[in-house]
Amino acid sequence: MQQSALEGALESAAFLTEAELTAQLVGDARQIRVLTGDRPTGPLHLGHYLGSLRNRVRLQDAGADMFVLVADYQVITDRDASSSIADFALGLVADYLAVGLDPARSTVFAHSAVPAVNQLLLPLMSLISVPELERNPTTKAEAAASGRPALSALMLTYPVHQAADILFCRSDLVPVGKDQLPHLEVARTVARRFNTRYAPVFTEPRALISDAPSVLGSDGHKMSKSHSNTIPLQATADQTAALIKGFKTDTDRHIAFDPEHRPEVSNLLLITALCRGEDPVQVAEQIGAGGASALKRAATEAVNEHLAPIRARRLELAAERGYLSAILRRGAERATAEAEATLTRVREAMGMAY
Amino acid sequence: MQQSALEGALESAAFLTEAELTAQLVGDARQIRVLTGDRPTGPLHLGHYLGSLRNRVRLQDAGADMFVLVADYQVITDRDASSSIADFALGLVADYLAVGLDPARSTVFAHSAVPAVNQLLLPLMSLISVPELERNPTTKAEAAASGRPALSALMLTYPVHQAADILFCRSDLVPVGKDQLPHLEVARTVARRFNTRYAPVFTEPRALISDAPSVLGSDGHKMSKSHSNTIPLQATADQTAALIKGFKTDTDRHIAFDPEHRPEVSNLLLITALCRGEDPVQVAEQIGAGGASALKRAATEAVNEHLAPIRARRLELAAERGYLSAILRRGAERATAEAEATLTRVREAMGMAY
Repeated sequence: MQQSALEGALESAAFLTEAELTAQLVGDARQIRVLTGDRPTGPLHLGHYLGSLRNRVRLQDAGADMFVLVADYQVITDRDASSSIADFALGLVADYLAVGLDPARSTVFAHSAVPAVNQLLLPLMSLISVPELERNPTTKAEAAASGRPALSALMLTYPVHQAADILFCRSDLVPVGKDQLPHLEVARTVARRFNTRYAPVFTEPRALISDAPSVLGSDGHKMSKSHSNTIPLQATADQTAALIKGFKTDTDRHIAFDPEHRPEVSNLLLITALCRGEDPVQVAEQIGAGGASALKRAATEAVNEHLAPIRARRLELAAERGYLSAILRRGAERATAEAEATLTRVREAMGMAY
Repeated sequence: MQQSALEGALESAAFLTEAELTAQLVGDARQIRVLTGDRPTGPLHLGHYLGSLRNRVRLQDAGADMFVLVADYQVITDRDASSSIADFALGLVADYLAVGLDPARSTVFAHSAVPAVNQLLLPLMSLISVPELERNPTTKAEAAASGRPALSALMLTYPVHQAADILFCRSDLVPVGKDQLPHLEVARTVARRFNTRYAPVFTEPRALISDAPSVLGSDGHKMSKSHSNTIPLQATADQTAALIKGFKTDTDRHIAFDPEHRPEVSNLLLITALCRGEDPVQVAEQIGAGGASALKRAATEAVNEHLAPIRARRLELAAERGYLSAILRRGAERATAEAEATLTRVREAMGMAY
């Protein structure tokens, strides 16, 4: 059997960028599987959308087989589960569907609903030591950010649990930010160790490095719920206008795209350009000497116009709680079938098929 | 509803001895649940039988609802799974049935076969810190005994996994040796924390302190597979005679029961007495000045006579591999139903029912 260009690329590269992948996916015979997801800690925002959700939809539409995880068990690594976790989880599903993830083609499921995925944690934990996990820089940073005096056992072992998420469905690629590379390395390590010690059951996953730009929030820092500087996807047009009005800019009336020296202005130009499908330099030229207020008007209009159909769909979906639950249940069924098949192979490899 | 004597005893005592329990179980309305089990690392021996298996059968026959775990995932805490793990697991089932555990009344199941039990590990790990687990003296001792340079993540978290075993079926009592009390304390701690933070889902289990005597092996140390000093349950009568011939004794021809000063001779007296259902002092008087050889003849005869029907049943069972597998499958089904019911309550308590 002849190897496709994509197979070749996957074998030779330690990671791929999204542009490389999308270009190669089209028309490729092999279905590439991608695992991605979010923690249900609140509504998604424009930063998620421009930085990640949009690319997931592109990957799906290019033919990738997407597994999208509502990572509810990741929430409890650094906080207690709250009474709003169900609302957040169903809200994530509404966000996903509104931006264009198609439950007929993408599998959306929650951690807590798929015991067979979680069981994989146990054999995988036998293949990594406590000092190896304690050295993980991402775990250290997350532990410090949690503000808790002691690391919970779930947080220490979280990279192995994430490995289970990635490995159960034999994901080829995992979209990650650079801060998440140490976690992906844990998945690659335990997959390799299992395959060497027992039998070649797992695919060694590769990082899919995002080429989407990082979007800043109202305060000039990375847009993030924990900084309270976001534009939620579900905000109304008026709320969006008010939020963008509050975005930090600078005093130079002449608008130009210069991310290094004028990050806040350039960020609004970028948001506008991404929503319009234009170049931020061109957008800057159009605004010229209009100053921050013209820039913010342009940004508001572009965001509201681009998000209008998404927001309309989201509003409809949010009213259909039963439908959103059904999506999660169907996703859990498909994920369970995948995970059970993997567990069967793991049990056989370990001699635990009785 | 009036509280039974047993309910009262369970509520007031931090632990019960087996004699207290068995006496109170008879005729009690409430079905007490007991979780127990073994690692499938080799055939069971006379020490297991006299020290633990016999009491499990007594508890079962007195009406306790026994869950008996073939702890295959505990094997990989300190070693790789070997190709003989399936033989050992099915061998355990044969041992259990041969000594009198009745699969219609006792649920025999394997860790690796019940994802819903293993999933419980995740919410429970969020409730305990790494320093708490690192301080666990039993974990420290087991890690040192494993001879491995670094603690595996599975071994560090093993007490929490054991907590999941105990809590999933709402065990009231867990038979433990004193060295296992710190592990049981972890189960009690995470149960209490879950109940306080979320909702009262878990029963706080109590230790069931064995009143069975500890049996020594051929070298005068505790009978244990890792000391190669055992009399396997499945040994033949001739093998048993040869093994007992190799037991350490002393040079005093006058046989007397004096565990403190003559531990090896007293151990053979105890074994003989337990198998005959007599008192070791009486057995000693019968042998009198017969010396070690008469003592060993008596012990061999008593062990072989007592084990003969068990060995005959075991031989028949060992030939029925399909039947032993079916016992494990049926046990896994029942354990899964229990664990799924518990998981449902856990998901509801944590707000993760979508």
